[in-house]
Amino acid sequence: MTKNPLIEQRLWQVTDAPFNPGKLHHLETIYTIGNGYIGVRGTFEEGYPGELVSTLVHGLFDHAADELVPELVVLPNPLSLTISVDGEPFQMSKGKVHGYRQTLDLHTATLTRGVIWENSAGVIVQMTFERFASLEHDHLLCQRISVQALNRDCQIALRASIDGNTDNIGVRHWATLVTVPLDTAGSTSLPNSIALHGVMGQSQYQAVVASSFVPPTGSQVSADSSDPIRPAQTFTVALKKGEKTTLTRYTAIHTSRDTGDLLDNVRTTLTTAQMLGYEALHDTHKVEWAKYWHDSDVLIDGDEVAQRALRFTTYHVLIAAPRHDEHVSIGAKTLSGPGYKGHVFWDTELFIVPLLTLTQPRLARNLLMYRYYNLQGARNKAKEGGYEGAMFPWESTDTGEETTPRWTNPLPDGSRIRIWTGDSEQHISSDITYAILQYWHWTDDTEFFVHYGAEIVLDTAVFWGSRVEYNAALGRYELSQQIGPDEYHENINNSVFTNSMVRWHLRQALDVLDWLNAHYPQQATALTDKLHLNAERLSKWQDVIARMFIPRDEARGILEQFEGFFKLEPLDLAPWQPRVTNMDAILGHEPTQHVAVIKQADVVMLTALLPDAVGDDDAKRRNWAVYSKVVDHGSSLSPAMHAWVAARLGLADEAYDLFIHAATIDLEDNKGNVRDGIHGAAAGGLWQAAVFGFAGLETEGTSEKLTLTPHLPEGWRSMQFRVYWHGVQRTVRLTAEED
Amino acid sequence: MTKNPLIEQRLWQVTDAPFNPGKLHHLETIYTIGNGYIGVRGTFEEGYPGELVSTLVHGLFDHAADELVPELVVLPNPLSLTISVDGEPFQMSKGKVHGYRQTLDLHTATLTRGVIWENSAGVIVQMTFERFASLEHDHLLCQRISVQALNRDCQIALRASIDGNTDNIGVRHWATLVTVPLDTAGSTSLPNSIALHGVMGQSQYQAVVASSFVPPTGSQVSADSSDPIRPAQTFTVALKKGEKTTLTRYTAIHTSRDTGDLLDNVRTTLTTAQMLGYEALHDTHKVEWAKYWHDSDVLIDGDEVAQRALRFTTYHVLIAAPRHDEHVSIGAKTLSGPGYKGHVFWDTELFIVPLLTLTQPRLARNLLMYRYYNLQGARNKAKEGGYEGAMFPWESTDTGEETTPRWTNPLPDGSRIRIWTGDSEQHISSDITYAILQYWHWTDDTEFFVHYGAEIVLDTAVFWGSRVEYNAALGRYELSQQIGPDEYHENINNSVFTNSMVRWHLRQALDVLDWLNAHYPQQATALTDKLHLNAERLSKWQDVIARMFIPRDEARGILEQFEGFFKLEPLDLAPWQPRVTNMDAILGHEPTQHVAVIKQADVVMLTALLPDAVGDDDAKRRNWAVYSKVVDHGSSLSPAMHAWVAARLGLADEAYDLFIHAATIDLEDNKGNVRDGIHGAAAGGLWQAAVFGFAGLETEGTSEKLTLTPHLPEGWRSMQFRVYWHGVQRTVRLTAEED
Repeated sequence: MTKNPLIEQRLWQVTDAPFNPGKLHHLETIYTIGNGYIGVRGTFEEGYPGELVSTLVHGLFDHAADELVPELVVLPNPLSLTISVDGEPFQMSKGKVHGYRQTLDLHTATLTRGVIWENSAGVIVQMTFERFASLEHDHLLCQRISVQALNRDCQIALRASIDGNTDNIGVRHWATLVTVPLDTAGSTSLPNSIALHGVMGQSQYQAVVASSFVPPTGSQVSADSSDPIRPAQTFTVALKKGEKTTLTRYTAIHTSRDTGDLLDNVRTTLTTAQMLGYEALHDTHKVEWAKYWHDSDVLIDGDEVAQRALRFTTYHVLIAAPRHDEHVSIGAKTLSGPGYKGHVFWDTELFIVPLLTLTQPRLARNLLMYRYYNLQGARNKAKEGGYEGAMFPWESTDTGEETTPRWTNPLPDGSRIRIWTGDSEQHISSDITYAILQYWHWTDDTEFFVHYGAEIVLDTAVFWGSRVEYNAALGRYELSQQIGPDEYHENINNSVFTNSMVRWHLRQALDVLDWLNAHYPQQATALTDKLHLNAERLSKWQDVIARMFIPRDEARGILEQFEGFFKLEPLDLAPWQPRVTNMDAILGHEPTQHVAVIKQADVVMLTALLPDAVGDDDAKRRNWAVYSKVVDHGSSLSPAMHAWVAARLGLADEAYDLFIHAATIDLEDNKGNVRDGIHGAAAGGLWQAAVFGFAGLETEGTSEKLTLTPHLPEGWRSMQFRVYWHGVQRTVRLTAEED
Repeated sequence: MTKNPLIEQRLWQVTDAPFNPGKLHHLETIYTIGNGYIGVRGTFEEGYPGELVSTLVHGLFDHAADELVPELVVLPNPLSLTISVDGEPFQMSKGKVHGYRQTLDLHTATLTRGVIWENSAGVIVQMTFERFASLEHDHLLCQRISVQALNRDCQIALRASIDGNTDNIGVRHWATLVTVPLDTAGSTSLPNSIALHGVMGQSQYQAVVASSFVPPTGSQVSADSSDPIRPAQTFTVALKKGEKTTLTRYTAIHTSRDTGDLLDNVRTTLTTAQMLGYEALHDTHKVEWAKYWHDSDVLIDGDEVAQRALRFTTYHVLIAAPRHDEHVSIGAKTLSGPGYKGHVFWDTELFIVPLLTLTQPRLARNLLMYRYYNLQGARNKAKEGGYEGAMFPWESTDTGEETTPRWTNPLPDGSRIRIWTGDSEQHISSDITYAILQYWHWTDDTEFFVHYGAEIVLDTAVFWGSRVEYNAALGRYELSQQIGPDEYHENINNSVFTNSMVRWHLRQALDVLDWLNAHYPQQATALTDKLHLNAERLSKWQDVIARMFIPRDEARGILEQFEGFFKLEPLDLAPWQPRVTNMDAILGHEPTQHVAVIKQADVVMLTALLPDAVGDDDAKRRNWAVYSKVVDHGSSLSPAMHAWVAARLGLADEAYDLFIHAATIDLEDNKGNVRDGIHGAAAGGLWQAAVFGFAGLETEGTSEKLTLTPHLPEGWRSMQFRVYWHGVQRTVRLTAEED
């Protein structure tokens, strides 16, 4: 490993200079900070034209009138701060910016910005902005802003506000929003503070966003409550040339989802912060992050691009993972942007959870518990569909009910497209089961499994038992009207992925029940009673396992992604390079249904998850040869899965190419949509491609044995990571043979 | 070394995707292609709003009326090509760009662009553009453009023109510009060709830019001579869906600076190209580039940023270095942009030539011969100043006369600033001598030295003998009204850099004369007669060597950059970070004169060039401690020199930081002015920082012994390069000790 501090630094940092307004939204997303409770986009304190301000808290959904579905609600902006230099407000788009550099330090999860700015009267100041969302104190956001007079004496006014004039891209969710005092009541005194209390219109969730300041030395303080939804405090200080002034700001965010009185909580958080002070808070934050990285960092020697990208993606998984709340989960775009409205998909269980299961099992468990607490929503969905058991929604929010919109918003021509995923992308119930069994397998957390996990595995099996269709003519079970991972083909029959997962799922369910009967008979009985696991049901599961239809092209010895896939019109993707636009956007939504181009890993995904379901290595290679040629990677979920499988198949160059594709999705915005938020699944998938793919980490059955089948990319001198296996942390270090 | 082809590739490539219009000019500059004769900026074939089109040929200067100075003239644009898809012209700013990637491959000096574009009627095509300036055939630019119909049958029209409607940012230099036929006269037939002949207004240089095409298979060809300064040919072809068409274009550029008839030359170049064909031409081009890289590549294992940057900077030196012309030299911005109007400064001899002297001595010799052929200009300048001998101009063009403008263009307030460098930055005469002696020392090219180099060394010494001022009161020689490398302080007295270089220069001159007398008495006599090297002159040189004033701060044991420097107002640069604007732009030109902040390496530059002049290692460290703190790096020449010296002093982290600063000047545009062209001196300086700094390559006196005092940055596992030493190529490989 290099010991060069400057090389080390660039492997831990994302930075931009000079400021490029054309990348504004991309940078806002990638500079998001968070701590598993809040996520704050990297917008500037002083604002910028066209910016996308967003502070999100897990679980705070609201369904506005006229909107198709609920969404995570953007909170009042806790960053808002105007710095006036001799009365002239600092803006990056005005005056003269003589220098700018912004840096996200991944190791300490701290965002800093330095600016040298000259106002129109020629006064030049140096400004430094630093912020972090405390990993020690969930509800606390810390900021430090300093201004130094460089060339003249000047007057600096720092006007800090909590800006309630925020919305979700034009949609307002706050029924009421009012300034509340913090300094008059309660047991503590918070003289320099501002607070805003809001209640959402539909969900009635409440939130308080409050800031308490450490005024700059020698400053004059004035409060401004003239705008009831933008309380502000202004700190004015006269600087001699060369002098520097610093404002420290603590922001507390508490909501009605937390226990206790909101204002009491806010006061406690802010009083604690004031008592501990910025330096001590930052120090404990760094200590917590050092622990995170000790457990979750993948060290790669010999590849700077891969090293930095893996740290960047792991950072974004870690800042999104709830630490102390089992009732929320991670949305597809984490807490970093408006994409998919904060809804939770299979992305979480199959792409994000594995990284946490192996490196931060406590966080993985929180996410799986979210599904347990939302079983009722899944049961409701099954019942509404005429099925038994639990059928998880394709898109899930705080209620656990299906929240997939049924229609797109109007297209430019006024038409809308029917969204079928909420109806037909049913494999999610097995995806959740997969994640639960994987978690149990790796952690040996039997307490979780017996009390929570098993019920999900079994009740989703009950759903499948009621869902499968028996084709008497052919003597087989089928699943019609499905959407597999490849969403370019809707309402197809007999998805290989889904059918295979269901077959596997039912087999696991029977095993789980046997195991419970053997080891936890009381719990087995309770679940058998509760879920009506009678002999008839279990015997049907056996029958489904034996006779589930798996479409194949026997002549070529490969799976057929779904019935009729090989009859679709072929399309050679080779000349369509370089391309960012998805093929369905190019061909049109409906015409794409008839073309043999797939959105993302589907049979390849199955190869990753259930390799035995695809066959031996030759069969995997045959399937790979066909499906890797027709994949559009139209989903950011796709390249990492392909990299994983290619690595396992020993296709070194292909695997590495796909890995770098996945690694740069957010950092280089190579899909052009990072403005909507981080691609959380791609982030988690990258770790899996490295650990399950390149390192080839596996377990042998349920034995205690970990195995490694490394296929390190050429040039990687070594790769090191840590995983928990049955509660014990193991360090894996792979070293390339020297030439 | 890695054998991963994808990692190898990214260490040889500069690439951008998706297209970012905000970086247009930056990319145009860094994607410049060239072959030492022509330099073509990386503008798009089809044009782009606000682009800066530029094709430059060494030596083609013209002094337009109303302009302060002559400049390299932008030639008619040989790239111009419009691709119409069913009648609609392709533009990156119109229709839908579904994908874009541009790549400069440094290893093959080839620029490619791939685009997927949809016109307003929904027709989608894939386009590939490839271009290279043949390294085998100086006058030849090759292009290949292909279009593939992706989703429908369509009609493609490729309209290629030579666009004479170019200028130098608003200044027109062409007195006449006319279409000339190539296909009617001469011994060869060039049926598909267009040509433009131009004559410049003041210099009367002539140039012909001509293209010959290989029409796409099955295309209809039509000529358009309606616009006399934009001759065009259009190739129309009907494509079925999936079909691809390819147009090959050869462009010849010949000028009146070349021998022979212009049109004959053009016909020969184009006929040869047609005969050899694109593939063969590209192959020989690649072979020539493989030779360049064999000799000039620096291999670094363990640092991707440094590796790629060094290749990028070396590429830009190599594409700018004339191969077959001794009468031209490399301007400060190479042939890549309008900055400094193509004028030649000390940048060439002290920053660019050393890389060539050690790795491509033939090219170094060409550049030094340029100074020999322009001795008359230097003699004229000395004479006009009232001096003897040869005083090289600060800015030089084709005539060798001083071409530094005396005033800036009007500033926003209407005022103009007097430019003193042409009067006072006299050290350039010794800088050229330094490069000549370094060349002779490394190459042992006595033929060059005896016939050309020695005369420059001696006649510039004659100049200095006449230029120095004797201070009788203090019994010392002085130089007043100077500008050293630090151009923030003008017309100062007794620059340590200049006075030290002059003292060294005169000592070398005496040694050279002794050596000539001993080994080439006839040449010694001839030069003695021609330059009037009488006893009186030589004895004065001895006296100057003995009594040249070198300002020092004896108490601190350091040099004083010039008389009175330590009395200037101090300014702490530490808080002025991050900053791009130079301090003189911030403080104002005149006020900066009174502040102890320096533009660039000055005493530090002297430490690099003449280490003994600064003292022992302790003295160097004392000087470094002072001067490295007050340097603004306001010139791109500065960081690499600092890196070199810091490396020699064993200041590992400082050296590496400065090296990366230098390495990213053009790639990351960290000074914000790459639009004006590549920073040629920084490019050459980076190589010196690596080889003279980190590797510590030196020669012991005039012995045959090469010595290495490596200070490789931590993390660099190995570094390998080749140098010529007395005609024999040596391979240097340094390996870090394993931990």
